[in-house]
Amino acid sequence: MSTKRGPLHGKTVLDLTTALAGPYATLLLAGLGARVIKIENPTRGGDSSRNNSPYVTGEGLSLQRTSAQDMSVSMMVRGRNKESITLNLKHPRSREVFLELAREADIVVENYSAGVTERLGIDYAAVRKVNPRLVYTSISGFGAQGGDGKAMDTIIQALSGVMMTAGEPGDPPVRFGLPVGDLVAPLFAVIGTLSAVLHADKTGEGQHVDVSMLGSLTSLVACEPFDALESVGIPLRTGAVVPRLAPFGTFRAVDGWFAICAPTDAFAAGLLRAIGRPDLVDDPEYATRDARVRNAGDLHGRIQEWSARRPLSEVLAALEANAVPAAPVRDTAEAVRDELVLSRKEVVPLVHPEFGFVEGLYGSGLPVTFSRSATDLSRPAPGLGEQTELVLGALLGYDDATIDQLRAEGVL
Amino acid sequence: MSTKRGPLHGKTVLDLTTALAGPYATLLLAGLGARVIKIENPTRGGDSSRNNSPYVTGEGLSLQRTSAQDMSVSMMVRGRNKESITLNLKHPRSREVFLELAREADIVVENYSAGVTERLGIDYAAVRKVNPRLVYTSISGFGAQGGDGKAMDTIIQALSGVMMTAGEPGDPPVRFGLPVGDLVAPLFAVIGTLSAVLHADKTGEGQHVDVSMLGSLTSLVACEPFDALESVGIPLRTGAVVPRLAPFGTFRAVDGWFAICAPTDAFAAGLLRAIGRPDLVDDPEYATRDARVRNAGDLHGRIQEWSARRPLSEVLAALEANAVPAAPVRDTAEAVRDELVLSRKEVVPLVHPEFGFVEGLYGSGLPVTFSRSATDLSRPAPGLGEQTELVLGALLGYDDATIDQLRAEGVL
Repeated sequence: MSTKRGPLHGKTVLDLTTALAGPYATLLLAGLGARVIKIENPTRGGDSSRNNSPYVTGEGLSLQRTSAQDMSVSMMVRGRNKESITLNLKHPRSREVFLELAREADIVVENYSAGVTERLGIDYAAVRKVNPRLVYTSISGFGAQGGDGKAMDTIIQALSGVMMTAGEPGDPPVRFGLPVGDLVAPLFAVIGTLSAVLHADKTGEGQHVDVSMLGSLTSLVACEPFDALESVGIPLRTGAVVPRLAPFGTFRAVDGWFAICAPTDAFAAGLLRAIGRPDLVDDPEYATRDARVRNAGDLHGRIQEWSARRPLSEVLAALEANAVPAAPVRDTAEAVRDELVLSRKEVVPLVHPEFGFVEGLYGSGLPVTFSRSATDLSRPAPGLGEQTELVLGALLGYDDATIDQLRAEGVL
Repeated sequence: MSTKRGPLHGKTVLDLTTALAGPYATLLLAGLGARVIKIENPTRGGDSSRNNSPYVTGEGLSLQRTSAQDMSVSMMVRGRNKESITLNLKHPRSREVFLELAREADIVVENYSAGVTERLGIDYAAVRKVNPRLVYTSISGFGAQGGDGKAMDTIIQALSGVMMTAGEPGDPPVRFGLPVGDLVAPLFAVIGTLSAVLHADKTGEGQHVDVSMLGSLTSLVACEPFDALESVGIPLRTGAVVPRLAPFGTFRAVDGWFAICAPTDAFAAGLLRAIGRPDLVDDPEYATRDARVRNAGDLHGRIQEWSARRPLSEVLAALEANAVPAAPVRDTAEAVRDELVLSRKEVVPLVHPEFGFVEGLYGSGLPVTFSRSATDLSRPAPGLGEQTELVLGALLGYDDATIDQLRAEGVL
């Protein structure tokens, strides 16, 4: 029996990613226990995320950098549990170093624009020659055939259909602040990577794993055939409420909003009792699902009228007392401070390597609890190139003189 | 070199899930090549998704069932590539059959309410005794400690903070039609399952994997520390546009909407040329990022004024000619018919076991392209219990008389 380690303990990942989608994929692999070696360009200050305002400084958050120890919030979230080495992939000598690393690694993850890895000589074709069991994962906007279109989150959201799943018919599209276009592709990239590693562990055969941001988000949209449902009268854009499931939707109390999901007879009866109308439970206008759907407007109006004059605490207590599925609508600040979520480490405090925990700053955790293995995303993000000597020395056996030489030549 | 098979070929999954979150997790495992055996209750018509209106009938989609061959759209999407056996888990004799299956399996996935698997004697504690290398994954609303709260998608959305990431300050919460609360947890459940299978393949040690719907979605929300960013003046809810990145957001043309992401100097210059104002490129009001942020309202107003009088095709052509990252906002019907997405099988046509492809009906694909392994989600969903004899016969070695006897006793 081993001490508690991540389930991916023993696997090494070379991380060529920047921005959000790629780094989130390697963050998850790191949280699952893989060793993630982030390869950064020394000539431009490393991953551009290091230069995303705001920064954590000795005095808290700031829009400007105030000292060399300051670190961007983006890097503090996405760089956790990773090691950083510098390698100038445009330098001819770097390719050899990269391929020596690839020989020792199990996984490469990259999210360069189309054609870049080929030009640099570090694409899958190059890597498989030195390490045929390696899994090489590419995350791009539109997939390997998709060309070089700009794949920013808002573009992916627009093309995927998700913007037209909120609001009411005729409303403008609804842009989501949560960058789902950036965040869903890395989940599929991790699923693809782990599947390919399972295959490689069994057969010794690595492969290329190609994940598209548009394809990932659109596949989620296609989990429900919305347009086919609309064709038989089950509309998608119904705004705050869902008449077809009445009583169902979000409503306003004096000091906040709440959601109700009470489509069954029993839940609807509880709802009518909660709003002080037990007399309506057996009323033919509300007693059956069909009747409630027909009278959804009235029913939702009664809820709104009742709740609009009451504080949220009273509303939720009345719903709970009558076993009606309901919840407050929380903002992100409240949601990430949920005690149960924090206790399960699905969200974790962010720690700066010098300044420690920054009051009020939380980041994503690894939302999987294993009975035997550990997960961890508590190790602060590294400084640029912090582990260059460690990795090239201990992993590749380079001596100090060689490392100094490579640094002098601008390779590192 | 093997013929093309899924990377999970050779793994067997017992699928105890119902509704959406659980079945989507096992659908992905099936798409990756695992053998998924869906265990359904014979006494209530199997998985409740079989009774979700609408149905595919010989005459197309219908809100009512018209024949025994009709199949619900929900089952057609979620049941693909699975086998179905019946097993009445409330019958005392069923536990023995289940544990015999568990002895042959690699993975169990369940999403029962809290306490149910214990009561039925099929929880992880029971299963590990007969198969210590098995991975047992539970998907629940709030995790193993979370109690029995009703975890419907809208409740999870409300609690996670996502509803407050769209719209503008003071707006009501924005309910998403895409059930992100239901769809994100299964992605983490598959990540957790595959990680634990990797560990089990290496060590022989299985384990329990516990995934919460609320924790999964909240962890995504925590990928960006929105409330900390707001504290330094980077607001989250900015509606259709993002002034801090201007020109950036969604805008209206005569016949539709489009998105622009043009925060850099070069993109902004292209945008000004596209709207017929090359004279403004060097104007100090628009030439720098800081100036554009200061004048975001004006700049976005100029775009809107230009596009509102033009058809979408002309608007997009002008933006493309000037290399401005832009895209049409598509509805879900258009998005799932994207040629590239269909060619990559990220969305796939749905096929009824009797009636074949149903015009206009598409479902989720497996949005990962492997260079060596295959993925597949083209096999129609099974009828209730369609593989009962096959599984109990070929996998467990039951003879026909035993199967008949079990059926007569109400076990199957």
